[in-house]
Amino acid sequence: MVDKTVCLQNIGRMAEKAKRLNLRFRPHFKTHQSAKTGEWFRPFGVTAITVSSVSMARYFAQNGWNDITIAFPVNIREIGDIDALAASVKLNLLVENTEAISALTSRITSPVGFYLKIDTGYHRTGISPQNTRLIDSILVRAKNSGLLSFKGFLAHSGHTYHAKSAREVSAIHAGTVAQLKILKQKYKTRYPVIEVSVGDTPSCSICENFDGVDEIRPGNFIFYDLMQATIGSCSYDDIAVKVVCPVVSKHTSRNEVVVYGGAVHLSKEFLPGPGGNPMYGRISVTQKNGRKLLGGQNYVSALSQEHGILKVSHKNLNLFEPGGIAEILPVHSCLAADLLGGYLTTENEFIETKSRF
Amino acid sequence: MVDKTVCLQNIGRMAEKAKRLNLRFRPHFKTHQSAKTGEWFRPFGVTAITVSSVSMARYFAQNGWNDITIAFPVNIREIGDIDALAASVKLNLLVENTEAISALTSRITSPVGFYLKIDTGYHRTGISPQNTRLIDSILVRAKNSGLLSFKGFLAHSGHTYHAKSAREVSAIHAGTVAQLKILKQKYKTRYPVIEVSVGDTPSCSICENFDGVDEIRPGNFIFYDLMQATIGSCSYDDIAVKVVCPVVSKHTSRNEVVVYGGAVHLSKEFLPGPGGNPMYGRISVTQKNGRKLLGGQNYVSALSQEHGILKVSHKNLNLFEPGGIAEILPVHSCLAADLLGGYLTTENEFIETKSRF
Repeated sequence: MVDKTVCLQNIGRMAEKAKRLNLRFRPHFKTHQSAKTGEWFRPFGVTAITVSSVSMARYFAQNGWNDITIAFPVNIREIGDIDALAASVKLNLLVENTEAISALTSRITSPVGFYLKIDTGYHRTGISPQNTRLIDSILVRAKNSGLLSFKGFLAHSGHTYHAKSAREVSAIHAGTVAQLKILKQKYKTRYPVIEVSVGDTPSCSICENFDGVDEIRPGNFIFYDLMQATIGSCSYDDIAVKVVCPVVSKHTSRNEVVVYGGAVHLSKEFLPGPGGNPMYGRISVTQKNGRKLLGGQNYVSALSQEHGILKVSHKNLNLFEPGGIAEILPVHSCLAADLLGGYLTTENEFIETKSRF
Repeated sequence: MVDKTVCLQNIGRMAEKAKRLNLRFRPHFKTHQSAKTGEWFRPFGVTAITVSSVSMARYFAQNGWNDITIAFPVNIREIGDIDALAASVKLNLLVENTEAISALTSRITSPVGFYLKIDTGYHRTGISPQNTRLIDSILVRAKNSGLLSFKGFLAHSGHTYHAKSAREVSAIHAGTVAQLKILKQKYKTRYPVIEVSVGDTPSCSICENFDGVDEIRPGNFIFYDLMQATIGSCSYDDIAVKVVCPVVSKHTSRNEVVVYGGAVHLSKEFLPGPGGNPMYGRISVTQKNGRKLLGGQNYVSALSQEHGILKVSHKNLNLFEPGGIAEILPVHSCLAADLLGGYLTTENEFIETKSRF
C-alpha cells in the first residue's frame, strides 16, 4: 500500500531542493517502476528520468517519457534494443569501458548521449577518476561516430547506504562531488557543455552543498524505507509504503505471529535487529489518528518463501489474530515494490507496475 | 536456464525412492511454479501435488492437477477462493488453530481434507505435538461440518536447512517422524485412515528410514541449489539451474566482474563465502565436456537491484569480457525461479512460470 500524500510530500521536498540549488531533477524510476506513479512527478516540473534497465527505459518511453538516462553500464548484448529506443527518445547511456564504446560506435544508428561512469569510492562500477588514460581512450573512440555525444561525468555514491550517520553521508557526498568537479574542470575546455550528475537518496536527502553538480538522480526517496530511516535520510513518517499481510497464525508461547508475506513479497534484505538478529521489516498499526510504528522489539524476524515470522512484544500480541492483518514497513522498498508488482493507494486506486518481463 | 536431463534424473531418483519405501510422492510445486515443468512428473506416476498458496493451487488446478495440498496455514481471508477451488479439485488444507477450523466449518460448501500442522522443532508454524488439548479442540470443531475430513499429521522439518551435515539432517528427520508417529498412534483408533506427511528436501534426499511415514512432499530437489549442495542433499552436478547473466564490466585491479543480474533476479539469499563474507552464488563455465564449477574463490560477492558483482580469481578473469556471459548457480533456486518467471531448457524450449499475481 502506498500513501500518495506522503509520496507527493517526498517528491515535492526533493523537487523544491533541486530548484533552490539550481539542479536538474532527473528522478530514478526504478523504485516505483510504475507509469501512473511517474505521472505524480509531472506537476513538479519533472521531464527527464533515470531508469536501471533497457526494458524499464522502453516501458517509460511507451508511457510518455522522452528524456531517459539508463543508469547501468551499457549491456552490449542489448545494443539492438538500445538503438531502437534511441530512434524515438532522447537517450543517455553509461559507459565505463572501451568495449562498450566500440560496440556503440559500430552499431548505433540514432543519436545517443553518454556519461562516463566514475567510481568515486563505492567500487561497484565505474572508472577510477585517476584513470584519465581510459577516459581519453573512450572519448577518442566516441569521436569515430557522429552520433555519440559526451554528456559528462556521472557517479552513484552507493556507499552512503552503509553510512552510520548524516555526517558520514555528507563526507562521502563531498568526496564524490570533489572528484567529479576535478574531472569536469580537466575536460571542459574540450567539451564545454559537459555536466556532473550524482544520484543516491541519502546524499540528495541529507546534503545541502551541491556546488559543481548539474543534476541529481535519487529514486528511493519517493517511498523511503527502514534502511533510509536508519541512515537518517528520512523520518519514519516519511516512509510511504507498507506491505499489508494476512495473519494466519499466532504462537503466544514464543511471542510470534505468522503472516502470509515472505521472501517473495518483501525480499530477504535485512538490517540488524534486536540482539543483532536479522530484521526484515518493522510493524505498524493504523489507528484513528494515523499510522503508528510499534517499538523496535516488534519486527519481522524470519522469512521463508511465503511465510513471515513477526516477533511481537507480549503487550502487542492482542493486536494480531488469525484472519486479521499486519502492516510491515519494508527494509528496502525498491525490492519489495519490484516483487509485489502493484500498489493500492490511500485513494483506493490500484496501480500496476511494469511487468517484470 | 534449466537442464531438463538433470531435472528428470532428480525427479526419477526421488520417485524411485518413494516407490521403494512405499510412500506417496506428492512433490511441492512451489520451486518451479510451472505447468510445463509439472508435466515432467507425470511419467513417474505423480498424480498429487503440494503448493504453498491458494493462487498456486488455482494455477495448477487450471493446468490439470486435481489432488492438491496447500502446505500453508489456512488464510481465513481467502476462504472464498479456497471454497471455489474445493468445488473442482480434491483439496487438502493445513490447520493449526481454532480460528481457521471455525472459519472453514462455517463457510466451506464443498468437501475438503485438512491436516493438522505439527511443529516438530522448526518453530515456524504448527501445533506443539504435546498440545493435544488444541488438537482435540480443532477436531471437535471440525465435526460440526460434514464437509471437513481429518487427513492426519503433517510437518515440515525446515530446520534441516540449517543442518551442517547429513548426520544432523538424519537426526532431525528421525525426531520429526517419531513425534508424528506418536500422534498418529494416539488418534488412529478414532480416525483409522489418518496419515503422516513430511516434506523437506534435505530429509527426503538424504534419509532412508521413513517407517511410519505415508507421504513425502519435497520440492526444491527438482532443481537443487548451492544451499542443498552445502547441506549434502545433492552434488553440485545435481544442480539443474543456472542464471545466465550478461557481463557489462570488468575491473581487473580488484578481480571483479560486473553482470546484469541483481537482487531482482537472484534474490538476496546468501551463504557464508570466502572470509565469511556473504556469497550470493557461484560461477560455472560451460565447456565442450559440460559444465564446470569454478573454485569457491569465484563467487557473487554483492548484489544491488540490477547489478551483480563477481569476485573472480586472477587466472579466471580472462573468461569474462564485457559483451560475454557469466553463469551463476543460485544459492536458493526457489527464490531465483520465482523472480525470473521463466526458464530456457537445454532443449531450447522457453518455459513460462505462473504469473506472480
